[in-house]
Amino acid sequence: MLSLGINRRQEFFTCFRKHYYNAWIGGVSVTYITLGVVICVIVGYEEVQMERLHSDRVSDILLETFFPDGKPTTVEPGEIVYDSDTSAPSLFVVDKGYFKTYTISNDGDLHIQNFYGPGAIFPLAPVLRRALNWTSFRTKQTVYFETLTEASVYRCKAETFPIAELPPEVYQELIYRLLFNYEVFLNCAQVQKFRYARHRIIYQLLLLADMFGTQTEDGIRINPPLTHFDIGSTIGMARETVTREMEKLRSGGCLISSQQHLVLTDTARLQAEIENAH
Amino acid sequence: MLSLGINRRQEFFTCFRKHYYNAWIGGVSVTYITLGVVICVIVGYEEVQMERLHSDRVSDILLETFFPDGKPTTVEPGEIVYDSDTSAPSLFVVDKGYFKTYTISNDGDLHIQNFYGPGAIFPLAPVLRRALNWTSFRTKQTVYFETLTEASVYRCKAETFPIAELPPEVYQELIYRLLFNYEVFLNCAQVQKFRYARHRIIYQLLLLADMFGTQTEDGIRINPPLTHFDIGSTIGMARETVTREMEKLRSGGCLISSQQHLVLTDTARLQAEIENAH
Repeated sequence: MLSLGINRRQEFFTCFRKHYYNAWIGGVSVTYITLGVVICVIVGYEEVQMERLHSDRVSDILLETFFPDGKPTTVEPGEIVYDSDTSAPSLFVVDKGYFKTYTISNDGDLHIQNFYGPGAIFPLAPVLRRALNWTSFRTKQTVYFETLTEASVYRCKAETFPIAELPPEVYQELIYRLLFNYEVFLNCAQVQKFRYARHRIIYQLLLLADMFGTQTEDGIRINPPLTHFDIGSTIGMARETVTREMEKLRSGGCLISSQQHLVLTDTARLQAEIENAH
Repeated sequence: MLSLGINRRQEFFTCFRKHYYNAWIGGVSVTYITLGVVICVIVGYEEVQMERLHSDRVSDILLETFFPDGKPTTVEPGEIVYDSDTSAPSLFVVDKGYFKTYTISNDGDLHIQNFYGPGAIFPLAPVLRRALNWTSFRTKQTVYFETLTEASVYRCKAETFPIAELPPEVYQELIYRLLFNYEVFLNCAQVQKFRYARHRIIYQLLLLADMFGTQTEDGIRINPPLTHFDIGSTIGMARETVTREMEKLRSGGCLISSQQHLVLTDTARLQAEIENAH
């Protein structure tokens, strides 16, 4: 199961990182780096590598780096916390709850691009682009970030993102996040290769289970409370089609849907079904 | 104009980086980092930041890091240098020439995903994913990398990409490359918002001019020799439609096409035309 973020680790490593980061930003205070700390670096890396993908917690490294004294803010469901057109450059780390990001077409249609859960950082690409002094070529669409549930987020002003002064773990974490977002985007595009709506829906549900799934007694529960519109929107499918295909999956015993959650009862069977579909 | 890579810089910085990198990988040889070098770090960063996007040369930092004694190999036009299914994990840096990357659908159709020119690195995402111990969720399509022209590339085995031991400039460069690839992908998807083939083609030509353009007396020349099929394939448009719309652009005075190159004679006019199109 994939989840974003790194567990809070032993006091030892936290302490090491603080010193190490100070050494970096201080520039001249390199004397911090003693032989003992160098050994920690080597041990520390391996530990980061191992734990990276096996935790549900917001990354403590990122929090320490960007939100040194930050407290999360609570946000109501349906609230837009950020839009790329009018909001001041900001960076958010999700503490609890779920978000969706979407654009609105000239015809007024809403198109969901992605979902974010605990540990996610947004909007990452524009903040990094600005830090690297690189203006994107042509994309000018306004992107909105809205809560799906009650949520709490850390927020910081991102006008001066310290791209040249980060500890190696943070660079690695940023690379991982970019790869993750890219992968989600690629998968949503790839769904179009399936001819039938049933296979597109199965593919999308498996992807959501990979991103936001928890193993339960009944199967894998997709944690964010998504509507049929939400599920269809990322893959360009009408709400009605999603409802029809989900009903078939439910009566076929592959899906349980309660008021808040979807549970995939047999992901192996669903995976096998789309394996050779086209 | 956008181009990938960083100019070879003064001997001073090259020398600094070598020492600095040694310090990093050596781990214990941190004594290299003296106060003098720290000052270089600060000056060095600014310089990297400024030059990053204004050069046509392969990044010397990346070459030094991954291809310490590497010589580029010459590749014939139409040769597949890498496919994600059967090739050993490798990393390429383009020295000269142009490449396309594509997938083949179950129906046997070829779909171009992206083009690469001098300074480009591929396949970046899978190499980084492997280094971060992260298997992508579902994408299983075979991706092919093929030359569009005679080309020369640096190649290295990428089984053990030293993700935890890189100098900060290399991390920044990797982040920049990922953002760049993501942006190209996003732009190709975005073209679908236009209703008319004419606007889609204009958008795509402007994007190619941003990626691979050189200012000439007649206008901006798109350097790789792309066929009408190549241009249409990335945006899901038939070769015949591209030919028809390109002919209209040519007779309208917006485009000159020679045997090898396309030249956009008035990008401002083309940009204005799609500005409010939908």
